Amino acid sequence: MNASVIGFGSTKFREHWELGIKDMIREASKNALKSANVELKYIDSVFVANCFSSLINGQNNLNAVCSDMLGIDNSFSVGGGDSSGSYAILQAANAIVSGASKIALVIGVEKMSDLGTNDAIEAVSQFIDHENEADNGATLASLFAMITNKHMEEHGTTDKQLDMVSIKNHANAVENDIAQFRFNITRDDIIKSPMISTPLRVLHSAAYGDGCCAVVMCSSEEAKKHPIKIDLIGYGVGYDLLAVHEREDITNFNAVKTAAKKAFEKAKIKPEAISFAELHDAFSISEIISIEAIGFAKKGMGGKFIEEGKANLNGKTPINPSGGLKGCGHPLAATGIRQAIEAFCQLNNSAGNRQVKNPKYALTETISGTGATAVVIIFSK
Amino acid sequence: MNASVIGFGSTKFREHWELGIKDMIREASKNALKSANVELKYIDSVFVANCFSSLINGQNNLNAVCSDMLGIDNSFSVGGGDSSGSYAILQAANAIVSGASKIALVIGVEKMSDLGTNDAIEAVSQFIDHENEADNGATLASLFAMITNKHMEEHGTTDKQLDMVSIKNHANAVENDIAQFRFNITRDDIIKSPMISTPLRVLHSAAYGDGCCAVVMCSSEEAKKHPIKIDLIGYGVGYDLLAVHEREDITNFNAVKTAAKKAFEKAKIKPEAISFAELHDAFSISEIISIEAIGFAKKGMGGKFIEEGKANLNGKTPINPSGGLKGCGHPLAATGIRQAIEAFCQLNNSAGNRQVKNPKYALTETISGTGATAVVIIFSK
Repeated sequence: MNASVIGFGSTKFREHWELGIKDMIREASKNALKSANVELKYIDSVFVANCFSSLINGQNNLNAVCSDMLGIDNSFSVGGGDSSGSYAILQAANAIVSGASKIALVIGVEKMSDLGTNDAIEAVSQFIDHENEADNGATLASLFAMITNKHMEEHGTTDKQLDMVSIKNHANAVENDIAQFRFNITRDDIIKSPMISTPLRVLHSAAYGDGCCAVVMCSSEEAKKHPIKIDLIGYGVGYDLLAVHEREDITNFNAVKTAAKKAFEKAKIKPEAISFAELHDAFSISEIISIEAIGFAKKGMGGKFIEEGKANLNGKTPINPSGGLKGCGHPLAATGIRQAIEAFCQLNNSAGNRQVKNPKYALTETISGTGATAVVIIFSK
Repeated sequence: MNASVIGFGSTKFREHWELGIKDMIREASKNALKSANVELKYIDSVFVANCFSSLINGQNNLNAVCSDMLGIDNSFSVGGGDSSGSYAILQAANAIVSGASKIALVIGVEKMSDLGTNDAIEAVSQFIDHENEADNGATLASLFAMITNKHMEEHGTTDKQLDMVSIKNHANAVENDIAQFRFNITRDDIIKSPMISTPLRVLHSAAYGDGCCAVVMCSSEEAKKHPIKIDLIGYGVGYDLLAVHEREDITNFNAVKTAAKKAFEKAKIKPEAISFAELHDAFSISEIISIEAIGFAKKGMGGKFIEEGKANLNGKTPINPSGGLKGCGHPLAATGIRQAIEAFCQLNNSAGNRQVKNPKYALTETISGTGATAVVIIFSK
């Protein structure tokens, strides 16, 4: 038995100074139930993914908050760094397939604006190796910069290719209601944007924002009653060594490779069958390496894949038609759910001006930190 | 299909100044695998419960840490306040029953010593309603003190009954290797201990310590190959309003009531059939109210149940033969797993001097905060 998604809701991704975590959960949940055409009383479990409500919002018991707000007994708090939202989808799928839940509400929420920029950088440094990396001053950006330099050196990846990732994702985001950064950028804009860690500039990096996404999930059998749905037909979870310096080849995402391999095996399809993918472009380089690790391009050829336009909306395998983390913004735990929402809209041909042509299979991918863990999910119509 | 526990490991519960979170995970996991007689290579998923590694230990990606340390792809971070460990057991059970996992390692870990007392009080205030309670100065202790006063007023519960909970649990803990507080206390000791929030004194309250517990879980079918095991035959999750002042009756644990009702329905047994129970005695009053909410005693008669010795090791329904949170110490996310370990030892008649006579069914219960959520699990031999 498989699990399916039958509806979604979301806040816009923004700096939501006027909203608290509860307000965002309320808005996304309400919209998700409406979209799925399911009354609240039929929801028997809620999975809420979040990274920093304890650190930022003084609340460590977010599933209790959801139970209180929604009146649902079975509530579960899910973590897992940037991948938290994707993990929540898998946890809900397990609950559904095991028979523990009939209809589940899966929420990913993050409120990052309450942190200043430096505090936010320190917070997300909790996704990397604490003793060996963060404590010695490494940040996600500096580690990804090292990875980028090595990728350029070994595989000839260019600044232009990095730029084209950001340019494409911003262009796609223009057409996405949820997205925080709905404007086009040029190579000139990127070059003028501040250097964070050579060669990565601000416009190569996804910004941490506020947002909440929710999907309604049930068994694929139950989902047949719903006119609009997508089926989760495969998934995989993978890991790599936490500390970048311990990895044999830092230009590779082993976690993604493992996760994708498992997902393809379960779905019984190959990378070539994927109609489009939502990848984890926290930094431009991570989209390029993800393209390689999943198998859309050969090792070292991810940059070229971008440059040749294969990742464009009308390309061979559109990557991040939603705008990705770069265009949408990255409210950590919300991102995995937002990717599933994009799969839902695209596979049901309701993505408007950013619609991919006749998609059949969607792949979503999140990594945590510098790729210590990864979740890959494959959806079909 | 059901899930079973086939082995366990644990650090001692202490102030582990010399150990980090990783050291504790390593020790408990190693012991769990040895106890289950399972090689690491057969473990295909790990569920790690934790509350405060982000706030205290600068690590928000604990499942990635576990994957790295253990070499396991499928790792999941589980939250949920004081109940986190219990939730992790349920998540693992779902994964096993759904077929997503064959043999899972379930870990609960907490390192609280790195916080001073005031910081620890502030940290656990994250389990209660942030806006309405914590921000206005309420703490877990002050809320439980209000609940205690009301219980005394309405049901005639006495100081002596509260004292007897602590005295019993300390006495049981003397015989438990894991326990942090292995000494007997008297009513005189309690009266001499500092008042935290009238009428609750230090010796009515469980202390937050450091500890890590792990269990190995698999399907009940697979577990038949293992000579020593227990089966998870029922469970329930329940919730109550997060803010105490919003509850209709603050002397009741609605979340526990719901969770227990569901667990008994699934297990197809009644409270009378339970041989012993591990309950959430974060404060003495919470053991008394839990006894009532589960149905071991009628509403308001929990104190009398204690006074009559029914909860004693040789009583009608021994409560907290392990020593409970009071005697063992309460390293938050480890506690739910520690309860399962006690169930494992008792049901397999390996609890030494604290052995309950011929137990058949064990019940474990954790609540989060002041009872906003609760998990009840029933195990059988």
